[in-house]
Amino acid sequence: MSLKGFSAPLLLAIEAELQRQVARLDEPCTRRFHEMLTYHMGWTGEGSGPDVQGKRIRPLLVLLTCAACNGNWKSALPAAAAVELVHNFSLVHDDIQDNSDKRRGRDTVWVRWGMPQAINAGDALFVLSNQAIMDLALTHSSETIFKAAKILHDTCLDLTRGQYLDMSYETRTDLTIEDYWPMVGGKTAGLLSACCALGSLLSGVDETIQEVYRDFGHYLGLAFQVQDDLLGIWGDSALTGKSAESDLVTGKKSLPVLFGIGKNGPFAQRWAKGPVNLEEVIGLAEQLAAEGARLYTQETADQMTDLALQSLRMADPWDEAGEALFELTNELLNREA
Amino acid sequence: MSLKGFSAPLLLAIEAELQRQVARLDEPCTRRFHEMLTYHMGWTGEGSGPDVQGKRIRPLLVLLTCAACNGNWKSALPAAAAVELVHNFSLVHDDIQDNSDKRRGRDTVWVRWGMPQAINAGDALFVLSNQAIMDLALTHSSETIFKAAKILHDTCLDLTRGQYLDMSYETRTDLTIEDYWPMVGGKTAGLLSACCALGSLLSGVDETIQEVYRDFGHYLGLAFQVQDDLLGIWGDSALTGKSAESDLVTGKKSLPVLFGIGKNGPFAQRWAKGPVNLEEVIGLAEQLAAEGARLYTQETADQMTDLALQSLRMADPWDEAGEALFELTNELLNREA
Repeated sequence: MSLKGFSAPLLLAIEAELQRQVARLDEPCTRRFHEMLTYHMGWTGEGSGPDVQGKRIRPLLVLLTCAACNGNWKSALPAAAAVELVHNFSLVHDDIQDNSDKRRGRDTVWVRWGMPQAINAGDALFVLSNQAIMDLALTHSSETIFKAAKILHDTCLDLTRGQYLDMSYETRTDLTIEDYWPMVGGKTAGLLSACCALGSLLSGVDETIQEVYRDFGHYLGLAFQVQDDLLGIWGDSALTGKSAESDLVTGKKSLPVLFGIGKNGPFAQRWAKGPVNLEEVIGLAEQLAAEGARLYTQETADQMTDLALQSLRMADPWDEAGEALFELTNELLNREA
Repeated sequence: MSLKGFSAPLLLAIEAELQRQVARLDEPCTRRFHEMLTYHMGWTGEGSGPDVQGKRIRPLLVLLTCAACNGNWKSALPAAAAVELVHNFSLVHDDIQDNSDKRRGRDTVWVRWGMPQAINAGDALFVLSNQAIMDLALTHSSETIFKAAKILHDTCLDLTRGQYLDMSYETRTDLTIEDYWPMVGGKTAGLLSACCALGSLLSGVDETIQEVYRDFGHYLGLAFQVQDDLLGIWGDSALTGKSAESDLVTGKKSLPVLFGIGKNGPFAQRWAKGPVNLEEVIGLAEQLAAEGARLYTQETADQMTDLALQSLRMADPWDEAGEALFELTNELLNREA
């Protein structure tokens, strides 16, 4: 993502705030523990640097929403850090659950420090997110912090619900397309929706406007996930070079796969027979497209994108921050790999 | 533990509140997820019942402290549930980290549902504890909830610190007796101290009294842990019948073991050679006692107990609830197995 003018200082401030929050563990007797977290965040250790820190989309969304509501984005920094810490807690635990040994080209935390320490490192990121949100006390009333914490906690419960569904789907064969939305609603859309809810809440804007921003984040998250599912089968890296990462190989119950299963045609028959090999990826992706799954997925992504943009226009975001929000939305939804 | 008059209705109310909090996951699409938690809490599944639910010492401590400060213990129920949920989150993750297949005679969550789902079930218990504390909103001001949440979060960070140290000690050979206190301070004393801090905070009593109760919980926790370490080597079940559970066999760096290592005598020489066999347990426990570790550990437990009781007397707890607190302390610190 290109860092356009308005977002650049926000991204710098986010990184500084995250480091400040994680530094709660920077004490002599927990130095190595602290190091696990700074390694995961991309600040230290082999291969560290801006390229492996992730795009910080979620905290940026908090700050841009706050600014777009004419609020002081600096006052929302602890909330921005909180959502990014939640996101990273879930990544550390995800990597253990999925048995993934690499994240952004680097060894995952459990590979470097073992599974038991990695579970605890994830737990610590989660606690730090809770502590970060309390730091809003410097600029906000107890009542506002209460509301912000409630948004965060409700979102986290949705996250565990989504994660439960995602994992339980791996072994289920009775799934239909209706089972898709509760899973992605909890896992992706929930956190993006919370970002916009937090940013607007902390700006002090009317509750009706907060609702509109919350909807924007929700549809943005759904659009992003559906787009991700499309790329997971027909994206460049899924079809060429990295076939092993194709959702057809990992067996992910993504939207096009669930669509294909519902069609009960040649794709569904092949899918029911078990794991897909690397050599089958291109042919099976073509078969799935021929059955209409690609078009259906693209139309669904477009529909969610329209709903997101419609909400954002309705929110009438302020000036430069508003432009940056539209820009972020476009960049997120027009990826090609 | 015998349930004396005053505590009995509190324990019933705790169980009902816990069930209410966990029921947030009781929805059609997450029924099996909800079941993982109700199984772990001892309410459902094979072998469920009061005997396997744990003693609920921590939530009881919250309510008794609140009542002992002349507060309305019912208003503290969400906080009582929160600490018990934190405790159980740590147990679910502990069992994975320690590779323990049984808890209170039943299969652990990861044995029944697999490691990935068990990590997520632990995460959910943690989120539920955060949500429980927010339920104080029914009876307390946003400002008080803010303070209560801060106590909970700070304690949780200490918990992850203690867990990190505990796990990192497993492979370290350079430990001294000074390394003991930061570990148990985070793991056991932190949560008991938080219970008393929460109970007194929610009663509305003066901050100076809150401090005294917090100290009581802290020393109670330390006394409990040191006592546990004593029983882990010289208790009935460690010496007879269940030698496999002896801390000498599991290799736990408990207080007497660290004392023995520091003596650098026959015990330390044997310990340095690696894992202790079941047949060595009785002889090595005698050797460790002969080097003074048993006496030292008993004296340390007594000292912490004195400090706990001293704090409790200084707090001058109210009437029946006060008696129940003294009773709970005595029962906790006079265990024999």
